[in-house]
Formats: sequence, C-alpha cells, structure tokens
Amino acid sequence: MGKRIVVIGAVACGPKSACRAKRLMPEAEVTLIDKDDLISYGGCGIPYYISGDIPDENQLRETSFHMVRDEYFFHHAKGIDHVLTRTLATEIDRERKVVKVKHLDSGEENEIPYDNLVLATGSTPFVPPIPGRDLEGVFAISNLHKAIEIKQRLARGEIERAVIIGAGPIGLEMAEAFADLWGIETTVLEYFDQVLPRLIDPPLARMVEHHLREKGVKVVVNARIKEIRGKDGRVTEVVEERGSYPADIVVFATGVRPNTELARKAGLLVDRGIVVNDRLQTSDPNIYAGGDCIETTHLVTGKRVVLPLGSLANRQGRVIGDNLAGRPTRFPGVVGAFIMKCFDLAIGACGLSLSVARAEGFDAFYALNNQTERAHYYPEAEFIFVELVADRRIRRVLGFQAVGPKTDGTLARIHAISSILPHRPTVEDLISLELAYAPPFNSALDPIHDVAHTAENILTGLLVQIDWEEALRRLREGDPNTVFVDTRHPREAEPLVKKYPGRWIHVEYDKVRGEMDKIPRDKDVILICNSSRRAYEAQRWLMAAGYERTFVPPGGLNFLRRWGVEL
Amino acid sequence: MGKRIVVIGAVACGPKSACRAKRLMPEAEVTLIDKDDLISYGGCGIPYYISGDIPDENQLRETSFHMVRDEYFFHHAKGIDHVLTRTLATEIDRERKVVKVKHLDSGEENEIPYDNLVLATGSTPFVPPIPGRDLEGVFAISNLHKAIEIKQRLARGEIERAVIIGAGPIGLEMAEAFADLWGIETTVLEYFDQVLPRLIDPPLARMVEHHLREKGVKVVVNARIKEIRGKDGRVTEVVEERGSYPADIVVFATGVRPNTELARKAGLLVDRGIVVNDRLQTSDPNIYAGGDCIETTHLVTGKRVVLPLGSLANRQGRVIGDNLAGRPTRFPGVVGAFIMKCFDLAIGACGLSLSVARAEGFDAFYALNNQTERAHYYPEAEFIFVELVADRRIRRVLGFQAVGPKTDGTLARIHAISSILPHRPTVEDLISLELAYAPPFNSALDPIHDVAHTAENILTGLLVQIDWEEALRRLREGDPNTVFVDTRHPREAEPLVKKYPGRWIHVEYDKVRGEMDKIPRDKDVILICNSSRRAYEAQRWLMAAGYERTFVPPGGLNFLRRWGVEL
Repeated sequence: MGKRIVVIGAVACGPKSACRAKRLMPEAEVTLIDKDDLISYGGCGIPYYISGDIPDENQLRETSFHMVRDEYFFHHAKGIDHVLTRTLATEIDRERKVVKVKHLDSGEENEIPYDNLVLATGSTPFVPPIPGRDLEGVFAISNLHKAIEIKQRLARGEIERAVIIGAGPIGLEMAEAFADLWGIETTVLEYFDQVLPRLIDPPLARMVEHHLREKGVKVVVNARIKEIRGKDGRVTEVVEERGSYPADIVVFATGVRPNTELARKAGLLVDRGIVVNDRLQTSDPNIYAGGDCIETTHLVTGKRVVLPLGSLANRQGRVIGDNLAGRPTRFPGVVGAFIMKCFDLAIGACGLSLSVARAEGFDAFYALNNQTERAHYYPEAEFIFVELVADRRIRRVLGFQAVGPKTDGTLARIHAISSILPHRPTVEDLISLELAYAPPFNSALDPIHDVAHTAENILTGLLVQIDWEEALRRLREGDPNTVFVDTRHPREAEPLVKKYPGRWIHVEYDKVRGEMDKIPRDKDVILICNSSRRAYEAQRWLMAAGYERTFVPPGGLNFLRRWGVEL
Repeated sequence: MGKRIVVIGAVACGPKSACRAKRLMPEAEVTLIDKDDLISYGGCGIPYYISGDIPDENQLRETSFHMVRDEYFFHHAKGIDHVLTRTLATEIDRERKVVKVKHLDSGEENEIPYDNLVLATGSTPFVPPIPGRDLEGVFAISNLHKAIEIKQRLARGEIERAVIIGAGPIGLEMAEAFADLWGIETTVLEYFDQVLPRLIDPPLARMVEHHLREKGVKVVVNARIKEIRGKDGRVTEVVEERGSYPADIVVFATGVRPNTELARKAGLLVDRGIVVNDRLQTSDPNIYAGGDCIETTHLVTGKRVVLPLGSLANRQGRVIGDNLAGRPTRFPGVVGAFIMKCFDLAIGACGLSLSVARAEGFDAFYALNNQTERAHYYPEAEFIFVELVADRRIRRVLGFQAVGPKTDGTLARIHAISSILPHRPTVEDLISLELAYAPPFNSALDPIHDVAHTAENILTGLLVQIDWEEALRRLREGDPNTVFVDTRHPREAEPLVKKYPGRWIHVEYDKVRGEMDKIPRDKDVILICNSSRRAYEAQRWLMAAGYERTFVPPGGLNFLRRWGVEL
C-alpha cells in the first residue's frame, strides 16, 4: 500500500480530493469520513428539490449516469478504500498522525492513522440568537435531511405561511421555492436595507425587490426581529419591530460559519476559516483543507475571505488531490463569481459591489447600463441591466453585476468578467474585450462594452451624472432651480410635461441642437431618456454650447420602471 | 470650425467613428460619405430579415428607440455636418488632402478637403469565377438592397429550390432562413470537407451537418461546382462534379474581400487589407481605417489577419473617433470570437481551430467534452459539446469551440475564453478560471473546467486517447487485436455486446476493478461510455494494473449520436 490519506467530510471538496488522489495514486490507501449518512449531494440544488422542480432527493445524489453517490459508489466505482459514514472525527493528534473518530451508530471510538489529512469539514448555518429559534418549525438548512423534512411538510399541506429570515441568495431561492410552485404566502425579512446585501448594489437590488413583490413575495428590509413566537412548542409568528408575520415555518438563511473546531483544537492556524496557502496546505504541511471551512485570498482586495460556494469546493478538491500526489497545483484565490435565479430573473455578480469597494478603501464609482440581451431588432430580445464598479483613480475594474431575464445572458457577462478580473483589468481593458456577436445572441457591442464606455465617459468628464435618488427628490419637492428635459418621443414625454408644467419640458433627441433656446441656462438641467444614451448625447451638445450644470441620471427611466417607481 | 474630418463608408465603423469624433469635438466639421442610399443597417441581421423573423427591413436600420438611421438622423440627431449618400469616393489626393467624389444621381463630381480621413470602405462578397454566375437569380449579399430583392422573390412565391454556395456562417444562416420559415428545398454546397471550415473542427462540424440534415437541408461537402445553368437568362440548376442541383435561386456565401482599391490607388500600404497600426492609422498618419477593409493582428498567432465582423467594426469605429480627437486609444487585435445560430443549435468559437493551429506551426492537440449546460439534475438541461485546442509543448490554450442548444450557454463559454485569450492562458489557467455556478445555469464545474481537465490529463499521460475514426474503423473491420469494453449500464451495452460478440464486452463502471479478468491483456482495449468520464476512470484502473494498451475515444458515444453514426 502507498501512503495513507484520510479525508474528513464527504459532500463536495472531500470526495473530489479523495477521488482525484486515488486516480493519481491508485496505490494510496484513501479513507473518506463523514458524520452524515447522506453524502456527496448537490447542496445548491436543495431549493429546486424543495420547490418540486426536482421531484426526488436522490436526484441530488446521482451522477449524470444515474448512480447514487453512496458508500458503495465511492468504494466500488471510485476505489476509495474505506468509506465511513455516520462517523464523526473528534480529534486530530498531529504528533502521532492519527484521527480519532466516533462511529455514531455504535458509539464505538477508534483511531485512523494518516500520512496526509484533508479537512473538508464544511460550514454550519449561522442562526442569530433570537428568542424562539428553537421552536418546532424553525429551520436552518444544514443538510439534505432538513430539506427532506421541509418538503414532507409542504407535501402534507402543513405549511400555508412561510417566513424566510435573510435575503441572501439562499433566502431568495427558498422564497421562490415556497411561493412559486407551492403557492405559500411567503415573507422575507432582511436586516440590511436591501436584498442581496454586499453582493449587488441598490440599483439592481431594488429591481429584484420589485420583482419579488410582483411575484407575491412580501419583502421587508431593515427588519429588526424581536422574537419568534409559538404555540404548544410550534412556531406561529415572527415578531419584528414594526409588525408581526404569521408563520407555519421559519427558515433561517442568515449565512454560514466555517466548521473549524477540529482544526482549531488540533492547533492549526485558524482565523475566520482555516488558514491555507495557495496549495491549500494548512499550517501543518501534512494537512490540507478546502471547501466551506477555509479562508482563501480575494484577488481584487488581496485580503483573505471565507467564500462558501460549491463550485470553489469542487475546484479546491481537485487541487488538493493533485498536491496529495505531489503535483504542485495552485488555487490562486477567488473573485466571488455568483449567479442565481429569482423567479423570472437571472442575477449575477463578481468582484466587489460599490458598497464593499468603498468599505475596502477604493475610490470607487459605478456606471449603469441597460440594453437588450440580443440585437434590439431580434424577436423577443429582453433587457439586461448591468452595473460596473471601478476605481476612479487607478481606473481598475473592481466588480460587475447584472440582472437579466432567466436566460444564460447574465451568466455570459459574469463569465467574461470573472475570467478577466484576476488580470486586474482597467475600464479600457473592458472596452477592448472581444465578445462574440450575432443578432440572436448579442448586440454588436456587448452590454459589457456599453457599460465600460459609460464608465470611461464618466472618468473623462464627458458624462456628468446625478443619482436617481437626488433627481427624484428634486422632482417631487418641486425644486425651482431644476428643470427636467425629456429627449424621448413626444408621446412618451407628454404625460410628464402635463404633470410637471414648467419643470418637465420636452425637447426631442434630434432637435436638441436646433431648439436649445427652450432649455434654460440658469437652472440645473436633468436630461432624461429611457436608457440615458440620448440624454448623454444631449448633454454633449449642451456642454459644447456652454451649459454648465447639466446632469444625466444613470441608466435612464428603464431603471425606474423596474423599481416600480411611478413618476 | 474645428478640423475637417471626412469618413468614407457609412455602415458600421464609419458612422461610429464619425459620431464619436463629433461627440468628442463638437467643433469639428465631420462629413460622412457612402455610395449607397441605405446606410447604417444591421448587416448581420439580414438572414433574420430574409427568414421573416424580422418583418421589415427598416427594423435593421432603426435605433433601439425606433428612429431610422438615415441622412436626417445622422445630421440632426448625431450632428454630422454633411451626410452624403449615393456619393462615391473616387480618389484620395493625399498631397492636397482632398477626396474626390462623384454624386451618383447627378453625375456631378467635386472635391472635399480633409484634415483627417477615415476609410471604412467595407468589403465585397467574393464570387468565384464559375460559369453562369451572372445569371438572373444568382446572388451575393453585398448590401441591404440585395436582401430586399431576395425577400421579395420569396414573398411572391418565386422560389421553391435554393442552392447556397459556401457553408460558412452566412451560408448556414441563409440556409436556415430559406428552409426553416419559408420551407424552401435548400442545398448547401461546400468546397471543403466540412461545414464551417477553419472555424470549427470535424468533431463539432459533423454535429452541425447532421443537424442541418435532420432539419431537411441537403449538405454536400467536397463540392466541386462546374457551372451554373439557366434558361432564358434565369438560373435553373447548379452542376457539381457528382450531381446537379435544381435551383430557382443561388446565393454565393463564399467569403468577402476587403475594399482596398481607393487606399491602394492613394499609395497607402495595403496587403490583403489596408495595413494599420494599433491606433488604426494607415501608413499615412492623417488617414485612419477600420472595419472590413483592414488587416488587424491575431493575438494568438501574432500574424496579421482580415476578420470582417460587425462587432469589430463598431469597436474600431470608436477607437478611430478617439484618435481623431487626440485620445491615443488602441485596438490591440483580435482573437476571432464568433457565435451563430443554426436552427436549434448555438455554435461558437474563438482563437484557432485544430487545423488552423497546426497549419500555423503549433504542436496542437485537442480535447473534447460534453456535459449538460446546467446541473444534470436540473429540469430540461441539455448537452453542450466543446473542444479545446492547446499546444502540447508550451501548454498554451490556442482555441475553443462549442456547439450547444440555442440558449446563451455557448455564448457564456465563448465570452469567458475570448476574454482571457489575449492573456495567453495555459491549460492550467483555464482550470483556475472562476466561473459562476447555480444549478439553473451551470454545473459546479463548468464545461470549460471539464475540458481543461481532460486536456491536462492528456498532457500528463493520465488519459490516452484514440480518435473516433480509428476506433470506428477497427470496429467495422473486425480488427481481431482490439476489444471494446463498454462501462455503461447493462441495458445500454447489451445490443452492442450481441452485435459484436467477443469484440464488444460489458464491464460496468463500478465493477472494473473487481472484474478485470474479463478484460484481455493481450489486445488493444478501447474503453467506452457516453461522455468518456467513466471510460477515463476505467483506464486509470487498467493502467494501474499494468495494462499497456488501453484507449479512450474522445468525448464518448454522445458525439457519435450527434453525428448520426449508428454502431
């Protein structure tokens, strides 16, 4: 027998590292341990299992050729020498190089010697200490068993009203699972002032919130939960500062925490997650770690982050497998590429959002764009809304976000940016990206090009913007020093010209140069169109004619529409 | 007035450079010239206009806000000082810095002085000198007028049978336009031995050919056309060496040639296209050129290429506009990113195909992969087929191709690779790409990761392949020294075990290690499954057990199925 490899954790990173190591070193003796009996399941598929899109939980455990990934599978197909489920690793003795384990069914304890150890201990849902969190019917989805339990309740018709706590990706996916296919009255409570906090910024988050509401999901931001109440030990409502939400089920989706106790007890270097180098070695070179339990380097900030994503766990597993076999493969770090479905929307991002970029000390600004995902004349082309975050001083691209229809168009743009982000592109580098075009799939200039053009125009002072919030405030308060100039078709402008006489005027796009005398020189001029492209061109003419205070709200009226804002 | 800028050509690059220059320098006097009266149309949309997907040709000329991009539009909305259509530029006098023009309607000639000149003269379809090419009913789509004429004939019911000459992207798009919505009996004749020659390699091209045939399009490769015959001056058939194809219409889609005569006559440096530097200046620094008429640098080969694509023309137009205004923006070169729809397929590529890479002197090899575009358990996940081309010695990624369903999933993968390709990634760099994942949009490992893993396994000798052609030959000829080992489910393997007794044996994936005695050691062993993943793992076990001649056909049986090959 070759060297002894023990892998703790058998969901994503663990099995991947075990199997890759075994393929590279068939002579090695590989042991795979997990405290659960359901292993190697597609955890990211749980919301679709709960919704019913995926009828059977075994589908989350099957290979593409329909073998269930159980103990038999890993032993016989993958050749893992020992597959120990319902087995808890309780302690690592690094001196003697043994793992102490407890077999949960028999209570038996013993030791497993290793030459190399892999920690793939995953993460545990974080549940804030809210009174009532232990009531029956309050869940956090820590594993497939919990998902099965929730689905059984749904199937038995026991759930009419659901409250989700946390509007991150999992919270929103769960909200859709409840509301869409099961028709459950669903409320999402979010501590921050927007959905998907830190991941996307308000211009796109407001769009998602509006969409959720259109789909019948109640979204409460700035929620301050006081307690969860129950009757006969069973949850009945969630009490928030400003109201109370009846609930037959409460699901916490308030993030996860890396499982680091085992590593910490063994004296390994642990910060928020287990600290590893770029070959995924811990502070003990014989011990590797990967998946949700580690810290990795964020390639935009250069700082260490915990980023618990199934895709990273799989990639890290292969890197560990290589290193176990003496191949010095590296895991260079992360850029935080993310994609999700939310009812009829695709939402994606990578790098830093504006709020995070500013908190990290960048001189960050943002540019918005919206355009059709395909040539605008191609049938059924729908709009994609994107935000680019960049640093004003060094012109570096820091992040990118998109919300589009539930096609793969959003994925396409995130794929492009997440691939290039480790190369520290500037705004100009995005303008130079070559992005394939044919009318059924794209415009001649990709939405990435267009938003990069906008960002460059901002950087060079060609385009001067005003935040929509400020523009809306001035409109609503009737600010006498501001006039709105609508450059759209007369039919589009007319209702607003009537509603805001003297303050909302119409000068059509192609007449701006000829009818400039209609536009006052002594006021702030806010230029309006649907996407801000015509408004930008109008601004160029006005600036050339000496107008000093002209402003364009980013992204145009299309954003307001998607926020559900009526002018 | 500021400097005088004259732009020759008003389809894509020309208007873009004129408008950008005017926005940056409102004081400049900008003249835009075109010999046609239909300008600034979406040429890439022509097949969809002909098919009827886009009902009206004006839709190809409209902005997203429904203004037709005509002379009025460019003058009034875009501020172009002079928009001269039906105006042919006949000569450039670089000494005196004037362009001589002829107004085609009046016959009048005059001179237009310039400080800077932009050549955006486009390209002309290349029509090989085949007898009969001048017959009535023989077309090459050189402009929107031709497209309108074809569509009128279709609408009048004059066309029952069409022959397309050339199976490049435009040929295949035209074939779909005729066959799909109009139900025309359509034949595509291609000189090379595959469709989309040079763009994609046989493994994917055969898939496209099979799909075309399933859709009722006749595809003839290796076509040697002798003549086009007619009656009363009107086309009736196309005569090829091995047969004859009746036709009411013949469309040449045999490539385009850059329009360089004007530049050449003016003494500018011209090779296959007009030679420019990376700021798109010609050999006369006062003259810029962009779009279909220029040569640019291929960032993979480092050589100069002509790549006539609308997306590049648009981007080049903006670069020229910047440079005209004194901003030293660069156009670094191209990687040849391409995407197209072909009936129910999306086809994309970037970089070099295997055949081109080898012709360019690279030690190129290829890896294939097929997997579902989304998590395999997600409803309606369909397969995407990809090929990676890399250099064996320097491990550099040279190109990437994909054929998938007509979602944006193919675009997503092309976007990722075309974005990274200028950075000269190695196979390992692709493994390190961070590509967003959620079950509705992707697998935990992207198809890019998987094909890069395969390529790396080939490079390191973990995976030993045999071309499908050779494997099929041995099967069909009954090679006594070869045995096929089918690792799939018994139900899948059974028919072939029966059909090829003794030569096609079944050892299921999870039983390879236990039942190795069934597999002969004295023969070439070809390992079979649907995607070649199980076959690869089986090969690892056999190699570990001392088998010396085991082979895996790339990509598995899924490729054969899509080629229409019956075993």
